[in-house]
Amino acid sequence: MRNANRQLKLKSRPTGLAGPDNFEETTEPIRQPEEGEALLETVYLSVDPAMRVWLKEDPGYVPPVEIGAVMRAGGIARVIESRIDGIVPGDYVQARLGWQSHPTLGAAGMQKLDLGLGSLEDWIGPLGTTALTAWFGVKEVGRVASGETVLVSGAAGGVGQIAGQVARLEGCRVVGIAGGPAKCRFITEELGYDAAIDYKAEPDLAAAISAACPNGVDVYFDNVGGPTLDAALANLRHKGRAVICGRISQTAADELYGVTNVGLLIGKRARMEGFIVSDFNDRYDEARRWLSEKLKAGDIKQRLHILDGLEKAPEGLTMLFEGTTTGKLAVKVAD
Amino acid sequence: MRNANRQLKLKSRPTGLAGPDNFEETTEPIRQPEEGEALLETVYLSVDPAMRVWLKEDPGYVPPVEIGAVMRAGGIARVIESRIDGIVPGDYVQARLGWQSHPTLGAAGMQKLDLGLGSLEDWIGPLGTTALTAWFGVKEVGRVASGETVLVSGAAGGVGQIAGQVARLEGCRVVGIAGGPAKCRFITEELGYDAAIDYKAEPDLAAAISAACPNGVDVYFDNVGGPTLDAALANLRHKGRAVICGRISQTAADELYGVTNVGLLIGKRARMEGFIVSDFNDRYDEARRWLSEKLKAGDIKQRLHILDGLEKAPEGLTMLFEGTTTGKLAVKVAD
Repeated sequence: MRNANRQLKLKSRPTGLAGPDNFEETTEPIRQPEEGEALLETVYLSVDPAMRVWLKEDPGYVPPVEIGAVMRAGGIARVIESRIDGIVPGDYVQARLGWQSHPTLGAAGMQKLDLGLGSLEDWIGPLGTTALTAWFGVKEVGRVASGETVLVSGAAGGVGQIAGQVARLEGCRVVGIAGGPAKCRFITEELGYDAAIDYKAEPDLAAAISAACPNGVDVYFDNVGGPTLDAALANLRHKGRAVICGRISQTAADELYGVTNVGLLIGKRARMEGFIVSDFNDRYDEARRWLSEKLKAGDIKQRLHILDGLEKAPEGLTMLFEGTTTGKLAVKVAD
Repeated sequence: MRNANRQLKLKSRPTGLAGPDNFEETTEPIRQPEEGEALLETVYLSVDPAMRVWLKEDPGYVPPVEIGAVMRAGGIARVIESRIDGIVPGDYVQARLGWQSHPTLGAAGMQKLDLGLGSLEDWIGPLGTTALTAWFGVKEVGRVASGETVLVSGAAGGVGQIAGQVARLEGCRVVGIAGGPAKCRFITEELGYDAAIDYKAEPDLAAAISAACPNGVDVYFDNVGGPTLDAALANLRHKGRAVICGRISQTAADELYGVTNVGLLIGKRARMEGFIVSDFNDRYDEARRWLSEKLKAGDIKQRLHILDGLEKAPEGLTMLFEGTTTGKLAVKVAD
């Protein structure tokens, strides 16, 4: 096994939710690094909503994952051998590893982890790209100000957890939308959300938001899209901002929900804005220092949902879109 | 007649398009101005898409026009008598006159016209609030830059005419969407639009926009909402901006079109933003100086569509939403 690189390759494009049927496991010999490359052992792989987009034939903003190619994924790995300056065996790095156990990769996009900022688990969680997405979305796109009301959908998810806590630490009142009483308890009792709305229990989500945010919503951090976005727009305040981060509710292109409240932006002088975290990659260090400080002070928590074994990755993707995970989802590939 | 103030009052809230059935004409004696008031003779009344919103029971951002009240409208009037400092008989002012021939109004919201900047017709047209809406939308909300592609819907309408010309003068390539060949010829031949799309002749508007804007759309100035907005979002470029100014296609609240392309904002890092011109009222003078200069140089034109007589105002409102007007619509009440 030590000389085998296990890989999960895309077999077919998903029509509905992606899952085990769309991937096949293969094995290839481990490849020794050439000059400028390193041989890695994958420890954690991040499972993210954006993966569904990468699986499309035309994702729009990135090239698609081709049929027969190793599934694209970011994660954390241990360095086994290195011919990259400044990276030595035993180091831990963050890289676009793909769904494989022993990738041999070039230096581009590879970053050595500073374990002084946090543990390996912190680097997959509250110091990872998911957390950075939340940080830049709340602070740079949403531009939250102290005293404002911030509403977060997918609040118990990887991005949502951190988004709510960052907004709370910026002095905002934070209301989360999540599915089911367990997730709602989790975000209020563990993460310090001021209130939670269980969308599965609310026949009229707009009314529920209005009740939880009696002065309206200054910033809506949207991880889900669909009717939740409409309900949030209805409650947006004057000069409100909707940060469009994800749309996990919109799984099928032919069943896209039509947002009817876009016209309300006029009277509200409101703004909707989309972003991709990599737009801010020259400022990742700044965000990580902020997050590390809060983490060490106990002001930020993150629940990780860890699946054990590379072969669990496709199933994780299904779970993510079914909403059966709580917290940041990752696959543990090696100890 | 000289002692009678003719008024058009709201009789019933429109269910579909507003029109003559929703208003009734009454007459009341002219009221002499008290201290701080002026008696005015209405010359022009502006007919604007926003009026449909004001007629709703709950417009959201302004109080509704109540049943039995004089219809709200901005316009230009001659001063007959004045007990306001700095305003004398014979002056021309801009004010929220309402649909009436001889209003007696306080100083709030009343502005003396500087006829050095342009004629009375210019003040209802390219120096009027409609033109200011276009100017602030293009420059402040859209933040157009030289060399960008700007797409304008309702391009032959009051706001659209000026929006396209301002963008052209800022060095942009400007493409307009309008209904029918006459309007399309008007915007390209008279207003200097680089290209026109006749939405009535295009079965696939997104494809037509793509053909007219092969490098995509940097700024979409939206006057119409609905499926046109969806088609424009599909063509928005990286970091594109959709300026949500109006939604004249969306007349009935219970038939609101659902915008399906909102999720594209993420990958495009794009922004949609609504605004109301009065947010910028401390900068109207700056905008008017700019517009007056271009007007005098012959760089900006505006076609007015003038209806003759106060009694034509309700019909004008219907025409506006039927798309049978070209240019800025106004009612001439007195010479």
